[in-house]
Order: sequence, then structure tokens, then C-alpha cells
Amino acid sequence: MNSSSVGKTETKILKYNGTIELSSGIEFGPIDIAYETYGSLNENADNAILVLHALTGDAHAAGYHNITDKKPGWWNDMIGPEKAFDTNKYFIVSSNMLGGCSGTTGPSSINPQTGKPYGLSFPVITIEDAVKVQKILVDFLGIKKLIVAGGSMGGMQALEWSVSFPDYVSKAIIIASTSRLTAQGIAFNAVGRNAILSDINFNNGDYYDKKYPEQGLSVARMIGHITYLCEESMHKKFGRRLQNKDKPDFDLGIDFQVESYLQHQGHTFVERFDANSYLYITKAVDYFDLSEKYGSLENAFKQTNASFLIICFSSDWLFPVSQSKEITKALVKVGKDVSFCEIESPCGHDAFLLEFKTQTEIIKSFLKRDI
Amino acid sequence: MNSSSVGKTETKILKYNGTIELSSGIEFGPIDIAYETYGSLNENADNAILVLHALTGDAHAAGYHNITDKKPGWWNDMIGPEKAFDTNKYFIVSSNMLGGCSGTTGPSSINPQTGKPYGLSFPVITIEDAVKVQKILVDFLGIKKLIVAGGSMGGMQALEWSVSFPDYVSKAIIIASTSRLTAQGIAFNAVGRNAILSDINFNNGDYYDKKYPEQGLSVARMIGHITYLCEESMHKKFGRRLQNKDKPDFDLGIDFQVESYLQHQGHTFVERFDANSYLYITKAVDYFDLSEKYGSLENAFKQTNASFLIICFSSDWLFPVSQSKEITKALVKVGKDVSFCEIESPCGHDAFLLEFKTQTEIIKSFLKRDI
Repeated sequence: MNSSSVGKTETKILKYNGTIELSSGIEFGPIDIAYETYGSLNENADNAILVLHALTGDAHAAGYHNITDKKPGWWNDMIGPEKAFDTNKYFIVSSNMLGGCSGTTGPSSINPQTGKPYGLSFPVITIEDAVKVQKILVDFLGIKKLIVAGGSMGGMQALEWSVSFPDYVSKAIIIASTSRLTAQGIAFNAVGRNAILSDINFNNGDYYDKKYPEQGLSVARMIGHITYLCEESMHKKFGRRLQNKDKPDFDLGIDFQVESYLQHQGHTFVERFDANSYLYITKAVDYFDLSEKYGSLENAFKQTNASFLIICFSSDWLFPVSQSKEITKALVKVGKDVSFCEIESPCGHDAFLLEFKTQTEIIKSFLKRDI
Repeated sequence: MNSSSVGKTETKILKYNGTIELSSGIEFGPIDIAYETYGSLNENADNAILVLHALTGDAHAAGYHNITDKKPGWWNDMIGPEKAFDTNKYFIVSSNMLGGCSGTTGPSSINPQTGKPYGLSFPVITIEDAVKVQKILVDFLGIKKLIVAGGSMGGMQALEWSVSFPDYVSKAIIIASTSRLTAQGIAFNAVGRNAILSDINFNNGDYYDKKYPEQGLSVARMIGHITYLCEESMHKKFGRRLQNKDKPDFDLGIDFQVESYLQHQGHTFVERFDANSYLYITKAVDYFDLSEKYGSLENAFKQTNASFLIICFSSDWLFPVSQSKEITKALVKVGKDVSFCEIESPCGHDAFLLEFKTQTEIIKSFLKRDI
């Protein structure tokens, strides 16, 4: 355990017995919300930071659940005493997204009306819906003012927070993110979904007590992984090196290290993630489009009262720098306070989970400005 | 039918009853070689151009097989009277690659020893092996000197020709190609193969009289298609436009045009291509590495006697411009005659099949130089 870690943490569940109106018009509930908190809320209840996870994340953002855990929470490098999100100063909240599979209600949860998992009877959700659910949690915790921060899909949620709850959000930190996916981004998600939907074990989403559609989910994850890296990082990490051999095998098995890595990523992902959740959450990501919803990005941002920090990474081709610049320009155009920072990194989209030193400096200085 | 088309064409089969030694050391034969020719071989037998197809191409490069055909051969825009490859001057030869599924022996061919399709008993082949088979065809046709030309995997074969048969190849036209795939390129191929191998109907490659592994092959093709385009071309072609609707459906089906396009590409591909061939040919592409084989790219090129034309496209991220520059630099370094041309194009890797006007000018002027 790292000495500056938040230490032992645990995921709690807030059981919300009401319903929310989803973007689709459907009233949905009850909803379990899985969350963790680190640090303490101050008297004014205005020192909270909501960190928002990416596609396959969960509420466990920092610390260790058990002394035997090999890995800490997914943003442990960023959350803790004197870290970017300093638990000595801030009350950090992290929750699993609606539609997820790590405690918050999603397609693998039991539908109380049937006593069986929702499966494909789970309603299609949006980033806006996920944010509505987070608002329930934040209200429950008694938070009055909020800083929101997230990378990738987490950044989409942070953007949505700043637009949906303008009187609530004081600062928004948007990392390696976008106000809308590119056509290429939709395409990669669509192929991943296709791999899952066409797995013989998918069984129309009803597989929870049967064979799991692991091959399809594994292929979807492999596709995703290629997009999270970039050619430069793949070249450095693997190049054309063979996997434990001097010469290729001249068979159809694995020859190159990069193949072995991807297959491993696919296999381990299947153990921790639900195929239906993958379908629903990628769909939510595809749907997210602030400019479509408000007519233009400028229109969307007119109502925000937050200060923005936009961070992007030079080698990120999934959520490219140009998209972060687009957000920044729109914010400037409507007179909002915005800091933009492009970090030179060879790590591709994954940089937001890796380049924590540079991010820490930038985020600390942004947070320091008026607290 | 286009007036400057080569008109009605047909695929012939050369039945080679000998064997060749494959890169793996295996002696393999007999081999059927499917080919087409356009134009006439001159008396000196030195006006031949061998055009080499990309991953999923075939021998049918130009003209129409039937008056009712909707589509001509795959490079019809480039082959014909007064076209880039001018059939008034040149004798154009095109053949299906070893391991393919359009007439040349491949995994779907009948193994004469068993009377059944080879399936996965087909040997793993390389680009070098494919070129060896083409040499048999070229000798059979009585060709004494050869110009080789190809895009993508076709360019790899053209490079291999110029290195393997230095006294034979007078000119080599290498389009949107590389001397070795990037780690990212291998990764995309590996995921595609994985999708096929994990299809329940794949049945260890023995599916010819059973259910076809169409879902896996379709996913592999979709992945491929994303890499053949680029974000710019996808943005122009599809953007975030919805498919025949004003609002998203809020279900897990197809919402965006780009999804519909990819699914269509996947479905139609399954009708014309063999899943086993996809495995074998992508593996051959992964293995190809001139610098690994000869110690360095310079070493590989030392023995060539060809003049080279290297064409690449600005938006091609699968076979990026940097790789064409690498080839060019190596050729220059060992004193070879080389012309390099980067074409500004928004069409991604697919540009070699689309940007035929610019390519025609460049290729014509290159071919004119001393014939």
C-alpha cells in the first residue's frame, strides 16, 4: 500500500426507491447507486469533487478494498493526501454509472418486478440519465457545491453536469474527452457491440445463468484497447517482437507480443465486466452530443457557471486534441472561464490514466485558484 | 460498360502440377492459379505489367465478366486503353493470390489427397510464397521482363518481386504500402482473426458443408473497413447522421449511418470471401518484413535492379506516409532510382482504389520514362 494512499476503502450502496425520467421518456426505478467517498465534507458542504469513471470503470476510484488487493482503485494515483485530488482538502465522491455492473443498477441487476436480471429489458440510457442518478447521490451526501472531473466518458459526464446543473458546479475538469464522438468512434463501438450481439451465447441478453458471451465481449475489448493506445505507444511497447520465440510458428496461433497482449486484455475483461452493460454504456456514449441537444456547443455552454479545465493528449486519436479545442473555443466564445492544456504524451487515449504527474500539477494549480 | 473498358474479360486457371517450397519449409502442390490478362504481349515479351491485388481482391482486375455485371474488376479505373495501365501498350496480368478463394488454390480448395477442402490443413503461407506462385504464371505466359504494381498488400508483393527477382523486374509501383506492418496493423488483423476463430460455426476451419462462420468474418471485415477509411472521410461520408430517422430509437439496434454502412459491408463480404482465406492472408501480411529478412531495408534493396515509384496518401493511417518515406530513403541510400509521391487525399487507405485520376497521371509519366 502506498503511504499517500487513502488506505482501506469500501463501496457503499445508496438505495433510491423513487424513479427518474430517462431521456427516452421512460420512468425508471428503483435504483441502487454504488459509491465511495474519500476525505471529509466541510461545514459549508462546498469542498466536494465528483470523479467520473470511463467506459468500464466503477465506484472504486482510490485505495484498497482488502490488504491483499494487488491493485488499488482506478485513479489511485490522482486521489489521496496531497495528490491531484487532495483528500486533506476535498471530499471526493466516486460512483458507478447507471447501466454499469459494479453495484449501480444495470442490465445484470435483478428487476424487482420479475425477480430476474433485466437483461435487454433494461431501458436504453444516456449520459444525461447517468448524471441525473449522480445528482441523487450528491444530494443524499448533503453536498451544496461541486467540482466535477473525469476522463474520456467521465469527461462527457462532467460536461453534462456543468450544463445540466449550472448553479451547482463550480469547476469542471474535462480530460481526454469530447462533446460528441466522431463517426470513427461510433464505428468502433458499433463493431464491438456487433461482436457481442453475434456471440452464440449472447442469447438475446439472457445469459446470466447460462454460458457467457465471452468471445464477443473479448473481441469488443480488444478493439477498444487498440483505440486506447496509439501506434507510437504500441510500437514502443511491442513493436514487431515475437512472443517467447525467435521465429514465427507458421501456424494460425499467436506469433507477436501485441497479439498476446490483446488476447490477455480480452480474457481478463470478461471476468470483470458484463456484456449487456458494455452494450448499454457504449450506446450512451454514442448518443452523447451537446451541440445536437442545444443547437450548438456555444448554446449548450451559455448557461454554465463553472470554470473549466480542458486537458487533452497529443497522441490521443480516439478523442483527438481538435475536439478539446472545439470545446475550449465554444467556452471562450460565450465568455466562460476556461484553461486549455495539451499534454505531449506518447500514451494515446490511455494517457489520462497514466500521465498522472503532469496532470497533477495542472489540476492542483487549477483547483488552488480560488479555494 | 465504360467505352474505354477492356470489355468482356474472363478468369482462366493455370493448373501447375509441380510443387514449390514454402517459406515454412513445406513442399506444396499442385497449385491452381486463377488469372486474367488484358492487352497483348509484344515480340520481345517485355511489355508486361503484373498488377497485384490487396487483401481481399481477386484475378478479376478489369472489364466485365458478363454484360449484366453491375461492377467491373477491382482496378477497372486504372486498367484499359489509355488508362494508367494502358492496354494499348502493355500486357496486363492479374492473378488471385495463393491462399485466396477466387480460383487460386487456398484453404477452401479440394486437397487432392483427401478429396475434401484443405481447411486448416492448408499450410501457412507468406508474401514470398505468393510471389513464387506468380512467377510460375509469368513464366507460363512467356514474359521476359516485368513491371509490377500493387496497392496495400499488392505493394508488399511488388516489393517482394523486385527483391526476389532482380533481373526480371524493370519497374515497381508501390502504392499505399509498406515493407512491414506496424504493431497497430498486426493488432487489427489479430482481432479480426480472433473474431473468426471464436465464431461458434468456425468448427476448426471445417465448415464448408456446414453453417458458415459469417458473424466472425463479418466483424473482421467491419474492423478492416474502419482502418481503410479515416476519420476525415468517415466524417464527410456519415458524420453523426442517423439512419433513416430524426431521433435515435433508444434501443440497441442501428441508429447511425456509419453503423448501417459497416454492417452492410460485413454482410456482403461474407457472400464473397472465405473465412479461412482471411486467416491465412492476414497472417501472410503480418509476417511480411523485408528488413527482418535481410537485416535491414537497405540490404534488402541492394540487389534490386528496378526503378521504383512510391505512392502514398496523406490520410492513410493504416499504411502511413512515414512507411513509404522509409522505403524511399532506403532505396536512395543504396543508390536506386526512386520517385516518391505523397498524394493529398481525404480517402484514407482506400485512396489507392479511389484517387485514380492523380494516380493515373503519376503512373503514366513514370511508365513513359524509357519505354
